[in-house]
Amino acid sequence: MSAPAPDTVFFLSDYGLRDEFVGVVHAVLARLAPHARVIDLTHDIAPFDVRAGAGALVRVLPHLGPGVVLAVVDPGVGGGRRALALASGPGPGPRFFVGPDNGLLVPALESTGDVTKAVALAPAPVAGATVGPVTFDGRDVFAPAAAALCLGADPGSLGDPVVATSLVRVPAAVCEAGTLADGRHLLRAEITWVDRFGNGQLAAPAVEIPDHVAEVEVRLENSPPGVAGDLGAWRRVRSYTELAEGEPGVLGDGNGRLALVVRQGSAQLRFGVDAGGLVQLVW
Amino acid sequence: MSAPAPDTVFFLSDYGLRDEFVGVVHAVLARLAPHARVIDLTHDIAPFDVRAGAGALVRVLPHLGPGVVLAVVDPGVGGGRRALALASGPGPGPRFFVGPDNGLLVPALESTGDVTKAVALAPAPVAGATVGPVTFDGRDVFAPAAAALCLGADPGSLGDPVVATSLVRVPAAVCEAGTLADGRHLLRAEITWVDRFGNGQLAAPAVEIPDHVAEVEVRLENSPPGVAGDLGAWRRVRSYTELAEGEPGVLGDGNGRLALVVRQGSAQLRFGVDAGGLVQLVW
Amino acid sequence: MSAPAPDTVFFLSDYGLRDEFVGVVHAVLARLAPHARVIDLTHDIAPFDVRAGAGALVRVLPHLGPGVVLAVVDPGVGGGRRALALASGPGPGPRFFVGPDNGLLVPALESTGDVTKAVALAPAPVAGATVGPVTFDGRDVFAPAAAALCLGADPGSLGDPVVATSLVRVPAAVCEAGTLADGRHLLRAEITWVDRFGNGQLAAPAVEIPDHVAEVEVRLENSPPGVAGDLGAWRRVRSYTELAEGEPGVLGDGNGRLALVVRQGSAQLRFGVDAGGLVQLVW
Repeated sequence: MSAPAPDTVFFLSDYGLRDEFVGVVHAVLARLAPHARVIDLTHDIAPFDVRAGAGALVRVLPHLGPGVVLAVVDPGVGGGRRALALASGPGPGPRFFVGPDNGLLVPALESTGDVTKAVALAPAPVAGATVGPVTFDGRDVFAPAAAALCLGADPGSLGDPVVATSLVRVPAAVCEAGTLADGRHLLRAEITWVDRFGNGQLAAPAVEIPDHVAEVEVRLENSPPGVAGDLGAWRRVRSYTELAEGEPGVLGDGNGRLALVVRQGSAQLRFGVDAGGLVQLVW
Repeated sequence: MSAPAPDTVFFLSDYGLRDEFVGVVHAVLARLAPHARVIDLTHDIAPFDVRAGAGALVRVLPHLGPGVVLAVVDPGVGGGRRALALASGPGPGPRFFVGPDNGLLVPALESTGDVTKAVALAPAPVAGATVGPVTFDGRDVFAPAAAALCLGADPGSLGDPVVATSLVRVPAAVCEAGTLADGRHLLRAEITWVDRFGNGQLAAPAVEIPDHVAEVEVRLENSPPGVAGDLGAWRRVRSYTELAEGEPGVLGDGNGRLALVVRQGSAQLRFGVDAGGLVQLVW
Repeated sequence: MSAPAPDTVFFLSDYGLRDEFVGVVHAVLARLAPHARVIDLTHDIAPFDVRAGAGALVRVLPHLGPGVVLAVVDPGVGGGRRALALASGPGPGPRFFVGPDNGLLVPALESTGDVTKAVALAPAPVAGATVGPVTFDGRDVFAPAAAALCLGADPGSLGDPVVATSLVRVPAAVCEAGTLADGRHLLRAEITWVDRFGNGQLAAPAVEIPDHVAEVEVRLENSPPGVAGDLGAWRRVRSYTELAEGEPGVLGDGNGRLALVVRQGSAQLRFGVDAGGLVQLVW
């Protein structure tokens, strides 16, 4: 490779911070690739929620410099799925992605380019890394592969080639635009993420509802018992500051997506906006 | 500037660790100022609790070396308040502070000196940093400003001058000392922080109750239903070890403040000691 | 010392991430030993749970490179127990351990060698480090000692010698193997750790139940009300992938210990597997 070896690992997982899983992976990376800096993206992806992890990677990718994305959200841990190292085309961000073959990595990688190389990591763990009969893949397989890439290894040296079209993909989130019989616009979109503040991000780009639209009718499909599905007309705003304190709104957010928000409040707590739900927006 | 450019960013926020907010800010700092080390002070300030964030910054400041304090607790995010870069006079700790103009930064800065320079950061985000119509200020405004300071920029180059007297300030926490009709001392103080272990720190310096005082009557004002306001006489101790296991006491803590504590127990769980409450101490 | 001074601090505590305790310790380490890297192992050890902290250190130790282990789980904080710096014999991992004398450090140290030097840290804190009448030992005693070791100090220079046999030890976890009257094997073991995913790790090495055993009867002693003690026959498996989704099993885990697991589920939530409980396994 003509490009310099990456010196940064961007690490995302569903390991949580309650146990020592994240710390052990850091220790292994420091031992095998001492020069590499490790940036924790988040480790609080809900256990086994591959789509949530894939979504977080897509959101952060435009803000990352060169490096290796190391991501583990892995219901199939311990077997039953391939372990991957992927390379993408040249660009300003990370060129290498390491993690399970379950759809976690591909959406982020493809948001910046194409898969230029894919290998299934050899199952043999690094010598001395494993102490038990079962591997802890983040520690024993994925971290050593990320470290090797930081040391300049070509992905092709880490395992057997994989055909890019065989990579597992997660189903795309729902985002459907249409027109009602009365001529009004309908946007039907999945809530893909509810953040700490209770904002509900939709799968839809902000541009789906032009800024000049003043109000949008908001309806939750299959709202849970006790939660009204029809949330009424919300203002379409460009900034939180257009909203009064406690007022709900439809906002184009910092990721360029539509979001259901409440200024200084939680759309999740007040309106039952939860990840995985479907929203109908009409204007 | 004659002083070397800072190489450490001290980062505090109410972003939590559940989402990728903190990770993205780290990634932006690494991209823009690769030589800088980022130390996370805490990111679990309660959402929008500016006073709690300001209090944490005051507590940590004596322990920080040179660098830039990057702090974001921000109910006014997205507009409606200025974004600041502040510089303070020479000293052993951080000389630069970046964050919102809502009172978060000033108490810590003024605990070590005066504001020597203040600018309102230019709203124009760094090229390429924003992907949505709304800025994520931590990522798009504050982190780039902190990175610029680490690269040696003068704060004056980052925006328009602000008069120090115009900076927003948070109300001071209650701390009133007096004498009762019977000659006893009364100290009335706000509980400004309850830590993970359930210790309740007061706004009052430890010296307000001299070490030779043996016992202090403790009373919670406006105690919640089911919680007794009069907590009885607690011993005034200099160390946890003077207390028996499970015994409550009034302690001068590691920040030099009075604290309501229970040895190997939680004053919060046992006595309803909660942040924002008011305590009367009589001796 | 002929070995190079360590440049990595491995940090574990029960401080949690809600407050600024961990951040302050990082700041002190950065100030006193700027060249040292700090790797957070975990800070979510349950408050005061020395055995849980000791167990986590034992599990991570085989994966650490050279450095200083800084560990604080400390019901006796503020006095009543010695503060320690320990050195162990040569090996690939950390050679120095700093923390309280309550049993936290010794099991991990002895998993790789013997205590070659032990000192009780001088109570005098580093100049300027303390602002209150009570020391915050992690910040004022342990972090400065870890930093001094990273600067090449000999442990012997940090305090008074301590006889290794006088070090406090935690009781060993229960692990008893025997034979029933009917000739079947009985293993009685303590559940020492339940991780985020609800897997219950036992004090027993995986080799206690050979791989060729097909099924194991599982029984919880003193199961809580509403939880059945007899959990039936579980399969003894070598990998999660041998289990169907939602099926429970007895697994040799990534630390070489037996664990009670449920594939893509939680043995804790489904079967009441909790740390501190005792399990009987019969085959």
